Amino acid sequence: MTALPHPFDQAISLEPAGGDLFAGHTSEHYWNAISPFGGTTVATLLQAILAHPQRLGDPLAMTVNFAGPIRQGGFTVRVHPVRTGRSTQHWQMEIRQEGDAEPAITGTAVFAIRRETWSDLESKLPPVTGPEGLERYASPARVPFLQMYDIRYVDCNPLAGGENSTTQCWIGDVPPRKLDFPSVAAFCDAFIPRLFVRKGAPRPISTVTLSINFHVDGETLEKEQGKFAFGKAKANAFYGGYYDQEAQLWSQEGTLLATTHQLVWFRE
Amino acid sequence: MTALPHPFDQAISLEPAGGDLFAGHTSEHYWNAISPFGGTTVATLLQAILAHPQRLGDPLAMTVNFAGPIRQGGFTVRVHPVRTGRSTQHWQMEIRQEGDAEPAITGTAVFAIRRETWSDLESKLPPVTGPEGLERYASPARVPFLQMYDIRYVDCNPLAGGENSTTQCWIGDVPPRKLDFPSVAAFCDAFIPRLFVRKGAPRPISTVTLSINFHVDGETLEKEQGKFAFGKAKANAFYGGYYDQEAQLWSQEGTLLATTHQLVWFRE
Repeated sequence: MTALPHPFDQAISLEPAGGDLFAGHTSEHYWNAISPFGGTTVATLLQAILAHPQRLGDPLAMTVNFAGPIRQGGFTVRVHPVRTGRSTQHWQMEIRQEGDAEPAITGTAVFAIRRETWSDLESKLPPVTGPEGLERYASPARVPFLQMYDIRYVDCNPLAGGENSTTQCWIGDVPPRKLDFPSVAAFCDAFIPRLFVRKGAPRPISTVTLSINFHVDGETLEKEQGKFAFGKAKANAFYGGYYDQEAQLWSQEGTLLATTHQLVWFRE
Repeated sequence: MTALPHPFDQAISLEPAGGDLFAGHTSEHYWNAISPFGGTTVATLLQAILAHPQRLGDPLAMTVNFAGPIRQGGFTVRVHPVRTGRSTQHWQMEIRQEGDAEPAITGTAVFAIRRETWSDLESKLPPVTGPEGLERYASPARVPFLQMYDIRYVDCNPLAGGENSTTQCWIGDVPPRKLDFPSVAAFCDAFIPRLFVRKGAPRPISTVTLSINFHVDGETLEKEQGKFAFGKAKANAFYGGYYDQEAQLWSQEGTLLATTHQLVWFRE
C-alpha cells in the first residue's frame, strides 16, 4: 500500500531542472481567488533551497516579493547561493513563467548553521486553550486554499469588525501534517487579512512583500509533536492604500517558530 | 557663504556611474567597529533608488542582507528595477567592492505610489516625555557612528541588564537634521543591540539581515517638523547564535514612520 503524498507536499514539489533551476506547478488545492495562495509560493521557494545541493544549514530569514501574478500551470524557480560564509549563506530567489519577460516573484533568503549559545525566549506562547478545545472556523470565503487549513480562533469571530485587528488562532494543515520549515513558512501567510478583521468583511487585497525570521532549528522542529501552530497577528497601520501585518507563530510545545511581517495593497 | 552638507548626506552621497550603477565611499563619521554602520548602508541603497531616473513613487518596503564585510574605501551600488506595475515597482539591490567576486550586500525594495484611502493607525506613539525633557545618552562604546546620533532614553539605562530587552528612546541626527527616508532607514539600525540590553554590556554581534516597512509617504514626511523620531524596540528570541530585533519608529508629531525587524548573529 502506498500512501498518497499530502496535498501540501504535492503543491510545493519541484523537479530539478539543472543547476539553480527547479520546475514546479501551481496546485488547484492551494489556489486563491486569482492566483496561488502566497503561502505555497513562499514555501516553494524555501523547498527549492532545501533541495539545492549547495545548501548550508537551516533557514534563518527570507523575504518574498510578489511582483506580478502567477498563472495556473508550470513555473520555474531559480535559487542561487550568492555568498557562502563559514556559518551563513545568502540566497537570491525568483519564480518565472514561460513567455514572461519579468519574474513574477523575487526574493532573498539567509540560511545558517546554528550553534549552542545562551538562549532566551522573550515572546512566550500566550496561556490559551489548546486546539482540541476549540472549533474550526468556517470561513464564508469560497477560495480553495482555505479548505486546506484548520483555523481555530481563541478569542473572537475574526469578522466581527472593530478598532483592533489583532487575532489569535491555532493553524493546522488539512489533513493534519507534521510541522516543517515549508509548512511554517506557509502558515505565515495563512492569517485572515487584517483589513477583513477591521472591516468585518472581505475586500480586495494583495500581499506585496512578506518577510519571515525563523527562531527554530531543524532538529528542534523535527521533535515537535503538535501539528498545530499558534499565531498572533496584528496590523500597525493602514495608510495610503497599503497596510502591514505582523505575526508570531509558536508550536503547541511553546517553541517560537517564526515571526513575520508583510505589506499588503488594499482597496476599500 | 556655503553651508557644508550634513555628514549623513556626505556619507550616503553617490555619483551616477552609468545605468543602474552608482559610486559611493565609506564615511569615517559613520564607521562602526570593523565596518560601516549598517544604517548608512541601508540608507545608501535607498538613496540610489531615490536618485534612479526610473524610480516610481515612495519607498514601501526594503530588505538588506549583510552578506560580507565592506572595507573602508569606494564601493559600487547597483539598483535595478526588476518589474514596474501601475502603482508598485520592485527593485534588486547590491553593493560590491573592487576585486571582490561576490557582493557584500544584497537586497530588494518595493516602491509605490500611494493614494487616498481609509487610514487608521493601530500602533500609536506612546504618551512619553518629549526629547527636550530628556538627556542625551552617553554611550560607553567608542565607535565613531555613535557620536552621530543623539539618543535619549525615556525609561531606562539601556545597559542595566534584566529579563526584558525592550527599550524606548528618541533618536536624532547630530547635528540635528530634518527627517527623510534615508535618515529614517538609518534610524532603523541605530538601536542599541538587544543582546547588550540583556547582558548589560557589549558583546560581539553582527546584523545578518534587516527589513523595513514604511508607513508614511514623502509628502507627509516632508511636513514633519520634529527632528527626532521615537523608537520602541524589543527582541522576541535569542536562540542558537542568532536573535531578532523588532522596532517601531514614530515622528514627534505621532506619525508612524516605519516598522523594522532584523536578525543578528551573536557570540556570548
